[in-house]
Amino acid sequence: MIIGSIGAVSAGLDLGKEGPLVHIGSCFASLLGQGGPDNYRVKWRWLRYFNNDRDKRDLITCGSSSGVCAAFRAPVGGVLFALEEVATWWRSALLWRTFFSTAVVVVVLRAAIETCKSGYCGLFGHGGLIMFDVSGVEVTYHAADLIPVAVIGVLGGLLGSLYNYALHKVLKVYNVINKKGKMHKLLLALSVSIFTSVCLYGLPFLAQCRPCDPSLFDSSCPSTGREGNFKQFNCPKGHYNDLATLLLTTNDDAVRNISINTASEFSILSLIDQGLYAVLGASSLMAGSMRMTVSLCVIFLELTNNLLLLPITMLVLLIAKTVGDCFNPSIYEIILELKGLPFLDANPEPWMRNITVGELADVKPAVVTLNGIERVGRIVEVLKNTTHNGFPVVDSGITINPTLGSSPNGANELHGLILRAHLILALKKKWFLPEPRRTEDWEVRKEFTSIDLAERGTTIQEVTVTKAEMAMYIDLHPLTNMTPYTVVESMSVAKALVLFRQVGLRHMLILPKYQAAGVFPVVGILTRQDLIAHNILDVFPHLSSSKGKKSH
Amino acid sequence: MIIGSIGAVSAGLDLGKEGPLVHIGSCFASLLGQGGPDNYRVKWRWLRYFNNDRDKRDLITCGSSSGVCAAFRAPVGGVLFALEEVATWWRSALLWRTFFSTAVVVVVLRAAIETCKSGYCGLFGHGGLIMFDVSGVEVTYHAADLIPVAVIGVLGGLLGSLYNYALHKVLKVYNVINKKGKMHKLLLALSVSIFTSVCLYGLPFLAQCRPCDPSLFDSSCPSTGREGNFKQFNCPKGHYNDLATLLLTTNDDAVRNISINTASEFSILSLIDQGLYAVLGASSLMAGSMRMTVSLCVIFLELTNNLLLLPITMLVLLIAKTVGDCFNPSIYEIILELKGLPFLDANPEPWMRNITVGELADVKPAVVTLNGIERVGRIVEVLKNTTHNGFPVVDSGITINPTLGSSPNGANELHGLILRAHLILALKKKWFLPEPRRTEDWEVRKEFTSIDLAERGTTIQEVTVTKAEMAMYIDLHPLTNMTPYTVVESMSVAKALVLFRQVGLRHMLILPKYQAAGVFPVVGILTRQDLIAHNILDVFPHLSSSKGKKSH
Repeated sequence: MIIGSIGAVSAGLDLGKEGPLVHIGSCFASLLGQGGPDNYRVKWRWLRYFNNDRDKRDLITCGSSSGVCAAFRAPVGGVLFALEEVATWWRSALLWRTFFSTAVVVVVLRAAIETCKSGYCGLFGHGGLIMFDVSGVEVTYHAADLIPVAVIGVLGGLLGSLYNYALHKVLKVYNVINKKGKMHKLLLALSVSIFTSVCLYGLPFLAQCRPCDPSLFDSSCPSTGREGNFKQFNCPKGHYNDLATLLLTTNDDAVRNISINTASEFSILSLIDQGLYAVLGASSLMAGSMRMTVSLCVIFLELTNNLLLLPITMLVLLIAKTVGDCFNPSIYEIILELKGLPFLDANPEPWMRNITVGELADVKPAVVTLNGIERVGRIVEVLKNTTHNGFPVVDSGITINPTLGSSPNGANELHGLILRAHLILALKKKWFLPEPRRTEDWEVRKEFTSIDLAERGTTIQEVTVTKAEMAMYIDLHPLTNMTPYTVVESMSVAKALVLFRQVGLRHMLILPKYQAAGVFPVVGILTRQDLIAHNILDVFPHLSSSKGKKSH
Repeated sequence: MIIGSIGAVSAGLDLGKEGPLVHIGSCFASLLGQGGPDNYRVKWRWLRYFNNDRDKRDLITCGSSSGVCAAFRAPVGGVLFALEEVATWWRSALLWRTFFSTAVVVVVLRAAIETCKSGYCGLFGHGGLIMFDVSGVEVTYHAADLIPVAVIGVLGGLLGSLYNYALHKVLKVYNVINKKGKMHKLLLALSVSIFTSVCLYGLPFLAQCRPCDPSLFDSSCPSTGREGNFKQFNCPKGHYNDLATLLLTTNDDAVRNISINTASEFSILSLIDQGLYAVLGASSLMAGSMRMTVSLCVIFLELTNNLLLLPITMLVLLIAKTVGDCFNPSIYEIILELKGLPFLDANPEPWMRNITVGELADVKPAVVTLNGIERVGRIVEVLKNTTHNGFPVVDSGITINPTLGSSPNGANELHGLILRAHLILALKKKWFLPEPRRTEDWEVRKEFTSIDLAERGTTIQEVTVTKAEMAMYIDLHPLTNMTPYTVVESMSVAKALVLFRQVGLRHMLILPKYQAAGVFPVVGILTRQDLIAHNILDVFPHLSSSKGKKSH
C-alpha cells in the first residue's frame, strides 16, 4: 500500500522514462525493508518486522513493479515486468502482492489525475490513464502484412543488439574513468550533461524554419507554452522549427509527433495507419535490447489501448528477441556484469557440467568449522580472520562431555550451519558459559527474540570481548540452522547452481561421498560468489576453452 | 506451433467454455509428448525427442495456455493462466514458449475468422477477436463507486466459495457412485445429461410469453435462426419467451442478453453502465471460485477490450479472492484432492516443520539399495518385488575387486541413484558381464543412445532373462545418476518439500548425519507420494491435531 502510493507520487515527478521510476520504486521499497534510512534516524520501529531477506526481496519486487506501473500507467505490465525481469525467485504469493501494489498505484494515479484536471499540476495527468490512446484507429491487417511486420522485428532485433553493444563499450569507458577518483567521476557527469544540453539546444539552429500550415488556428502554430506541436524557437513569426519541435518538448508530445506528423514520409506503406508501424517499431527496438516479450507486449497494450494490435505486437516482439539473442545478452545482463554484481545466471553455462562442487571447494581456502560448544576466543579469532558469512558446526568424535551428545562413539556429526550475524549477536549479548555444557531451550528463548535473530549489520569490530571472557564458552547448538541445504561432493556445478537459484540459497554445504571413520562430515561450503561464472573461470581457466556462445 | 494450431482448431468446435478447451489443448500436448497415442500405431519417430519429463511438462503447459487463449481469444490471459494455475515449476524459457504458442493460436484464429466471414462455419467467428467488446462504453467512476465495487467483490467471494463447497459435496457423491462399477458410471452420466436437458427444455414452458416491443423490426422478434435475442419457443406470433431466450441460445448471446436487457431491473444503480456491473460480477464470481487474480484480470481485459475497467476489475478480483480464501481452497485444489492425484502443495503445512525426513523414512519399508556391480538375479528379484522407481547404488566396503574402486579401504561409497527404467533397459538389451568388472565409457556409449535412456513404459514382466543370465553381472555405474539431490536426515519435511517443488524432483536421497565406519551412506529415499500431506498424516496421525486451517 505504502509502496504503491510512493510509486504513484514519484510518477507525479513525471520523469518520462521507466528507468528512474523503477529505481525510485525499488529504492523506497528497500528503505522500507531496512526499517528506514540508516543515516537520518527516522527508523520506524514496526518496520523491523520486514527486516529479513525474504520480505526485503518481496518489497523490492513490489517497488519495481509499482515503478513500471507508474511510468507507463500499466498495472498488469508492471506485474509482468517484475516477473520476467526483476524476480529471480518467484512464488505465487508474490503474484498477487505485486498485483495489489500496482492496483494501489493506479487508484492513487487516477485520484491525482482527477485532482489535477484543473491544470494546477503542470503537465502531469495529461492524457489520463492511457498515455498514447490509439483505440480509435481501425486496424485491419491480412496475411500479406506479416512480411513487413517480420522485417520490423528483424530490424528491431539488429538495432537493439547494436545498441546493447554500443552501451557495453560506453559503460566500459565510464568504468575506467570512474575508477580514477571522485574528480574524474564529477567531470564525467558534467561533460555528459553539457554534451547533451548542447546537442538539444544547438542542433535545432541547424534545421530550417518552416511556415505554419495556414489551415491551423493562429494559437497552435507556433505554440507559446510548454506544450504544443510547433515550437517557434529561432524562427520568425508564422514559422516553426521542426527539430526544436521534436527535441524541446515533453516525451509524450514527441511520441505523438513522430507517430502523427510523419505521414508524408511513410506514405509508401499506405496499407495501414502509420501510427501502427511507429508502435511496432518502438516495441521491436525495446524487445531487441531488453529481450522481454510478455511484459513488453502488455505494456504496449496498456499504453495504446488497442487490443487488435496484440497478435502482431506478439510476433514482432518474439522475432526481435530471437534475433537479438543471436548476438549478445540483454541490456540488463550487460549492466549487471559490468557492475560486478554477484548475480547468478538463471541457466548454467554448458561447461559447468564438467566440474564438480568438490573440485570447486578444493581450490578455495579450507573450510573453517566450529565446534558445537566453542571457546569465545576461537570464535572471535575466526570472525576477525575470515570474511565468511556462514560456518559449519561439527560435533567431532572427541566430545567435551560424551554423556550429552547422542552421536555414536567416535563419530563426527554435522550439526548444521551458523551465520556470522548470529555469532556476533551471541558475542554482543555476552551469552557466555563459564564451563562447556549444552544449554536448555528456555535459556535460549529468554535471551533471543526472532527480531534479534533477523537483525543484520553489526560487525565484529563493534563488539568488545574482555580477556577473561575469551576463555569462556558458547553453546552454538541452539543458534545453528540444523537443516542447511547440502549437496554431495560429486554434484556438478551446473546442478548445484540450479538448486541455488531455485531455492534461493546463500550457503550450501558440501558433504563427502564416502562414509568412514575419521572422514570429516563437511568438505566445503559454497556461496553465491563462488558460483558466478567468471569467478569459476578465474580459478579454472582451462574451462573457458569449452565456453558456449552464451558467455561473451 | 503444432499445439497452437491444434488449440485453434479445437476452438473451432466452439465449446463455449474454457474447461473443455484447456483439457483438449493439454491432452493433445500430452499425446505429442508421448510421441503419439499408444493404441493406434500412429507414433511419429521424430516425436521421440520430446519423450522426456521436462519437455512433456512444457508441452502440456503450452497446450493449456493455448486452450485458454482459444476459448477466450485472450493470448496474454492464456500465458498468465498457465503461469498462475497450471505450471508448478516455472522457468523463464517457458514464458516465451507459451507466449509463442498463444501467438500462433491467435494468428490461426484470425485466419479462420477471416475465412468464415461469409457465414459458412455456423456461429464460429462471431464477434471477431474480441468476444464481448464494450470499448464503446464510456466508463466514469469516482471514489464513491468503490463501495458498490467492494460489495461485488465480497459477494463474489462468498458465492464462489459456496459454489466450491457444493461442488465438493457433489463430486464426493459422484466418487461414491463411480466406485460401484462401469454400469453405475454410465447411469450417472445418462441421468446427469437427461436432467440437464429436461431443465433446459422444460423450464421455459413455465415462463410467461411477452409481447415483442413494437419499436423493433419484425425480423428480430421473435427470431427464427439459431441466433437472435428473442426466441418464440411455445409463444404465439409477435410474442417471445424470455427464459427460452436465455437458455436456448449460444453462450455469447446469453452473456450479451444479461448485460444489456436487464436495464429496467438495475436502474437503481444508474451511476454507471449496467454492463460494467455484469462484467465485474462475472469476474468476482470466477475469482471467488478459481482464486486467480492476474490472469483473470487480463482475460477479462482481453474479453471486453476496455482498459479503463482495469483498476476496478483488479480491486474486485483481489477482494473476491481474499474473501474466498477464508472459507475453502480453490476449485482446482478441491478437484485435485478428490481425484487423489499426487499433487504437491506449493506451501508446506505448518505441522510439517515438526517432523524430519529421517522420521518419515523410518516408517517406510527399509530402502532397497543395489551394489555398483550387481548380479542380474538380484536386479530381477528387486524389480519384481518392489514398485520403487529409483534405487540408490552403493559401493560397499567389501568391493568385489578392490583395485578398481577408488574409495578408501573399507569405506562405503554412495555412487548415486539408478532408475527402474534404466535397469529394465539394461536387462532388455542383455548388457550382461560374465564376471564382475567396471566397464569402459566407450562400451556404454556404443550400446545406449540418449533416446534409449529417455524411453519409459517397459515393465519388468515384458523382459525375459534365462537362468544362465541370472548368474551374470551388470555394471550399474555408467547408468547411475551420480549426482542425485540429497538431504540430511535431520532436515524438516517442510524444507524438503520446498526443495522438491522448486527443483522439480522425483526422488530425493536421505543421507545420515553421522560419519563413522559401518554407517550406511543412505538412510532412505523420498518420492513425491511420500510428501503428500494426507499420506504423511496416515502414518503420523498425531500430527493432524496440530493441523492449520489450510488443511480441510
